Amino acid sequence: MKTAVVGATGYAGAELTRLLLRHPRVCAPLLLSRQGECATELASPLDGSMLPLLPFSWKLLQEREIELLFLATPHEVSRQWVPEALRRGLRVVDLSGAWRLRNPEYRAVYPFKENGAEEDGITACAVYGIPELRRNELPEAQLVANPGCYPTSVILALAPLLSRGLVDLSQGIVCDCKSGVSGAGKKPTAQTHFVETAENFRAYAAFTHRHTGEILEQLELEPEQLTFSAHLLPIRRGILSSIYVRLNRSLTDNAVETCLREFYGGSRFVRVFRPPRLPEIQFVAHTNFCDLGWMLAPDGVRLMIVSCIDNLVKGAAGQAVQNMNLMCGWSECEGLLQ
Amino acid sequence: MKTAVVGATGYAGAELTRLLLRHPRVCAPLLLSRQGECATELASPLDGSMLPLLPFSWKLLQEREIELLFLATPHEVSRQWVPEALRRGLRVVDLSGAWRLRNPEYRAVYPFKENGAEEDGITACAVYGIPELRRNELPEAQLVANPGCYPTSVILALAPLLSRGLVDLSQGIVCDCKSGVSGAGKKPTAQTHFVETAENFRAYAAFTHRHTGEILEQLELEPEQLTFSAHLLPIRRGILSSIYVRLNRSLTDNAVETCLREFYGGSRFVRVFRPPRLPEIQFVAHTNFCDLGWMLAPDGVRLMIVSCIDNLVKGAAGQAVQNMNLMCGWSECEGLLQ
Amino acid sequence: MKTAVVGATGYAGAELTRLLLRHPRVCAPLLLSRQGECATELASPLDGSMLPLLPFSWKLLQEREIELLFLATPHEVSRQWVPEALRRGLRVVDLSGAWRLRNPEYRAVYPFKENGAEEDGITACAVYGIPELRRNELPEAQLVANPGCYPTSVILALAPLLSRGLVDLSQGIVCDCKSGVSGAGKKPTAQTHFVETAENFRAYAAFTHRHTGEILEQLELEPEQLTFSAHLLPIRRGILSSIYVRLNRSLTDNAVETCLREFYGGSRFVRVFRPPRLPEIQFVAHTNFCDLGWMLAPDGVRLMIVSCIDNLVKGAAGQAVQNMNLMCGWSECEGLLQ
Amino acid sequence: MKTAVVGATGYAGAELTRLLLRHPRVCAPLLLSRQGECATELASPLDGSMLPLLPFSWKLLQEREIELLFLATPHEVSRQWVPEALRRGLRVVDLSGAWRLRNPEYRAVYPFKENGAEEDGITACAVYGIPELRRNELPEAQLVANPGCYPTSVILALAPLLSRGLVDLSQGIVCDCKSGVSGAGKKPTAQTHFVETAENFRAYAAFTHRHTGEILEQLELEPEQLTFSAHLLPIRRGILSSIYVRLNRSLTDNAVETCLREFYGGSRFVRVFRPPRLPEIQFVAHTNFCDLGWMLAPDGVRLMIVSCIDNLVKGAAGQAVQNMNLMCGWSECEGLLQ
Repeated sequence: MKTAVVGATGYAGAELTRLLLRHPRVCAPLLLSRQGECATELASPLDGSMLPLLPFSWKLLQEREIELLFLATPHEVSRQWVPEALRRGLRVVDLSGAWRLRNPEYRAVYPFKENGAEEDGITACAVYGIPELRRNELPEAQLVANPGCYPTSVILALAPLLSRGLVDLSQGIVCDCKSGVSGAGKKPTAQTHFVETAENFRAYAAFTHRHTGEILEQLELEPEQLTFSAHLLPIRRGILSSIYVRLNRSLTDNAVETCLREFYGGSRFVRVFRPPRLPEIQFVAHTNFCDLGWMLAPDGVRLMIVSCIDNLVKGAAGQAVQNMNLMCGWSECEGLLQ
Repeated sequence: MKTAVVGATGYAGAELTRLLLRHPRVCAPLLLSRQGECATELASPLDGSMLPLLPFSWKLLQEREIELLFLATPHEVSRQWVPEALRRGLRVVDLSGAWRLRNPEYRAVYPFKENGAEEDGITACAVYGIPELRRNELPEAQLVANPGCYPTSVILALAPLLSRGLVDLSQGIVCDCKSGVSGAGKKPTAQTHFVETAENFRAYAAFTHRHTGEILEQLELEPEQLTFSAHLLPIRRGILSSIYVRLNRSLTDNAVETCLREFYGGSRFVRVFRPPRLPEIQFVAHTNFCDLGWMLAPDGVRLMIVSCIDNLVKGAAGQAVQNMNLMCGWSECEGLLQ
Repeated sequence: MKTAVVGATGYAGAELTRLLLRHPRVCAPLLLSRQGECATELASPLDGSMLPLLPFSWKLLQEREIELLFLATPHEVSRQWVPEALRRGLRVVDLSGAWRLRNPEYRAVYPFKENGAEEDGITACAVYGIPELRRNELPEAQLVANPGCYPTSVILALAPLLSRGLVDLSQGIVCDCKSGVSGAGKKPTAQTHFVETAENFRAYAAFTHRHTGEILEQLELEPEQLTFSAHLLPIRRGILSSIYVRLNRSLTDNAVETCLREFYGGSRFVRVFRPPRLPEIQFVAHTNFCDLGWMLAPDGVRLMIVSCIDNLVKGAAGQAVQNMNLMCGWSECEGLLQ
Repeated sequence: MKTAVVGATGYAGAELTRLLLRHPRVCAPLLLSRQGECATELASPLDGSMLPLLPFSWKLLQEREIELLFLATPHEVSRQWVPEALRRGLRVVDLSGAWRLRNPEYRAVYPFKENGAEEDGITACAVYGIPELRRNELPEAQLVANPGCYPTSVILALAPLLSRGLVDLSQGIVCDCKSGVSGAGKKPTAQTHFVETAENFRAYAAFTHRHTGEILEQLELEPEQLTFSAHLLPIRRGILSSIYVRLNRSLTDNAVETCLREFYGGSRFVRVFRPPRLPEIQFVAHTNFCDLGWMLAPDGVRLMIVSCIDNLVKGAAGQAVQNMNLMCGWSECEGLLQ
């Protein structure tokens, strides 16, 4: 199949390029730069050879007979380009936050000029691309909104318990999440400077992080039921989320394990760890796995879930490829198990 | 004053030695090794010069006219030596967990043969050495149980709000704590191997960590009211605790700030950060400060407190020196502000 | 093809297992433990699933019809087992230093009881498995001595210039080499403790490192012509060697480039970087590439070569697979380009 | 004494401010910003309290009766301001490269408009401030050119052997130097981004680094006698230089030790390590020490010297304070031994 990637110079875009280059069912992707970028080639994330980087144009997409367009672009760009792409019959996987949210209040964290009816229709049709929960909607999807990295780790951890009604929602759920520095993007800033990050650790957002709405909407929670905070780890990649819930009734490790395993029975990329084994970031680095583990209090009611992903793979590019696989009717693992 | 340190080869003991060597009111400490250690000297943590390391004996303590004994030893050793030390009229600051706990149930995490009435008396007299909360008890203390590192960060964060009755205890308090690797001790293990720790992050205990009882006892909480978890950061030193509480009523940032500043008005080593400023581990590394900051949810009811210390300084050796300062009637800052 | 790996619990052995598991032309390898190891299974380095680990026995090798045996074992074990393996008709790739050296003086750094004529014969037949230099000897090899990590990076950097007679050997060659911590092995030691390694850097051997003889022998240099030193980097994997030579006559960048490119024309795994581009460890991490770059002094006579490999891949397991590929008549890239 | 610091927002300037704040013989320094900087205060590097940052003006210096001016500024600024400062009778310690070099060819690496005779006079009077070699010139110095970080580590390592004529200069000296990231400055760039630096290592300059001339001039070497290369370590601070020389005659460890110890007999900040002990960056971090160690080849002729400093202390701010101490007739250790 023929694909194109806009934004291959960023971290998620480069990871996506790497995955597509070694994918057995797609050609080498067409790499496109947005206006203003002056680079004309890019070192291949696979083997370092130089790949051409061409200026984006609809004409070029047409000439190259591109069928699937990946947007690893700022949300404003995605918001602007997707309507035209859909009109031209392209399928799109958008890695930005532009089309993830239906609740307009939550969407306010991604400011852009709303254009009216056509966009409302697109929003309504966009599939939130977390395959473990939306597997059936993907084959027909024309637009997939690829989830945020933190939401992926949190939603996959909580969905089984919530769907079974096991969580006491009168008590708040706490999601204490930690991410590696690539989550902050490639642009050099004071926050990503090595000297400010190494041998350091800090919290940088709670209550107001723009991924909050995504979690609330997907898990159908009210704002006051969820506390979500974000911290910056002195590592390059990976997210570990520590999630605290109170259960409706006392459970055993066996019951928790059953709940998770049944929910994710057909999901190759979710791995369940039974105590005392716990997920670690090193186990998921450079993979598309989401590892889930937990610890239960002696009372059987307080539960801590540990969820690990690689923010650039399952939290971005790998999940985008997994979505593409399902959109195309292939095995969801294609090209994702090394 | 004349002091001795047992356990100067460990990380906390070395930090303590460094602080005592540059302390303006104490002589160079007598460094003592426990039976079985064969080293006879030790590189000074201050300037690298070689310092003598002598085998521990009560006779030597007497000859050198030691007045204050620091024990940076396993809890079994502290449990065994402290009664004799007190009988001999020595004052003791014990950095282990041996004498921190009164509740026998909590104390069970530090297994040792209990010896009866004398020990009960000692336990009853031991002062839990967190100067910001026990400043008045320290001048008379003969035995100070120096707090654990995690409890120091959590207790200092929660004490002001709890003492003012601002926390809704019907909702659980969650303490998600992260520590640098020196907290795991100097002994090489698979867990402290560089390759297993760098570019990694993991949770390693929840509900059962042996520091839990210490927090509960000091804050007078019931076990089910507190969830405490521990994680390992790929840094050498420092703790950041993220603490989540629900307040009894909606507060403003001003109210939270007032509460913290009033509580710690006379405490030189607690620094309060007002949002949007937040503590970071780099700000407290190599210092005796405990930095406190917070974020309030828009509802004013959900509160995240961020607490940072250096686990080897405020979480161990620095606090031991601070305790010594108060035991001796000196300024608590003596020797601790570089 | 059917292969077995002894030593899969170490870092090089685990990397080798990972590569064999995804290799298109070999079955899942039989994983064998040496006497004394009590583990009975091993987490797959590929996907974390549990793999059986069986006690080594010659009978088991026979039953499973193993054709190629990989030894990721201490040199004493390799020295002891290889003669029997060869008698039984197995082909062997040995990752230890046991069979790399012909000069008995150099071999003295790997102490073992020499057993006489049979071993002399084996030593004489063993092929030093650096495919870029010995490609023609590998198809017939029964025993391949897989090179050390430092020697791989140094030999590949120097071979082109030395073979063309461009180096002034009256001036010493200096090889200042730096390795990540996995090169020190998996055993926890004071040297591999995170706290002693992070935010630190140290030299640990010069003139006496046991890889020195290997470099001398392969490049046919005299001891006084080569200074080789080793340093420990606070990273998990990768080697960068900075190599300083004086040339016989002034060269241009073009001439150096031609020399390297001609020498490695058919070598897929050696990549040549022209100034101002220089190799970095991140470009070779997790790959089988050896990247070579250089800087020339304005005089055109003093040359610094920079050589980067991943010590666990091109410096150990990847090179072992590359050797296997050539022993079996396959493309040397099979299974090594992701 | 009254001092002012221009450039306190950079890494070296902040370290200098920290040292001056705790120095027993100077007042809290006046912190000055250059035109264009809009910050009006600065977190104290000592305890985090806010310090005023005032716009630079000659008038302000006069009003505050500043006696000694520290310039932690780009070399162009130093070049421009120093003549006026000297005319006004101020003493100056300049941390830039502006006034370090007398040889106009070497000085070309610091481009600025040369202004003629007055500047020639200043250059001629400026003292290169490496106290161990120029102790006698400092008491009278009006302008001290504080050395570069790499040159400090290299010059201190080589001066004893060269001054005794022990080095065979017909063979090139190789200085393979590695620095932590703070050496690259505080400005966020692609090179200082955490993701590009952690788990990585790279060479970035050889033969052309602008510190080369400084080493040549101070050690009175010809360009072809010295190869100097620079590498970037994934640590925050510290330099380790590996220096390779050929001796004129075979020496013993005792002879090398004697040479170093005699040369640095009165120098408190140079520590000599005898083999097998070797300097490590962690031993000098946050100190003003320069640690020297070595390894001799069995031939006694090839020598590797290892030299460690903290690039921000002995390589910048600490040395500046040491120079100030000597300029003022105080002990050179004042304020520098914690």
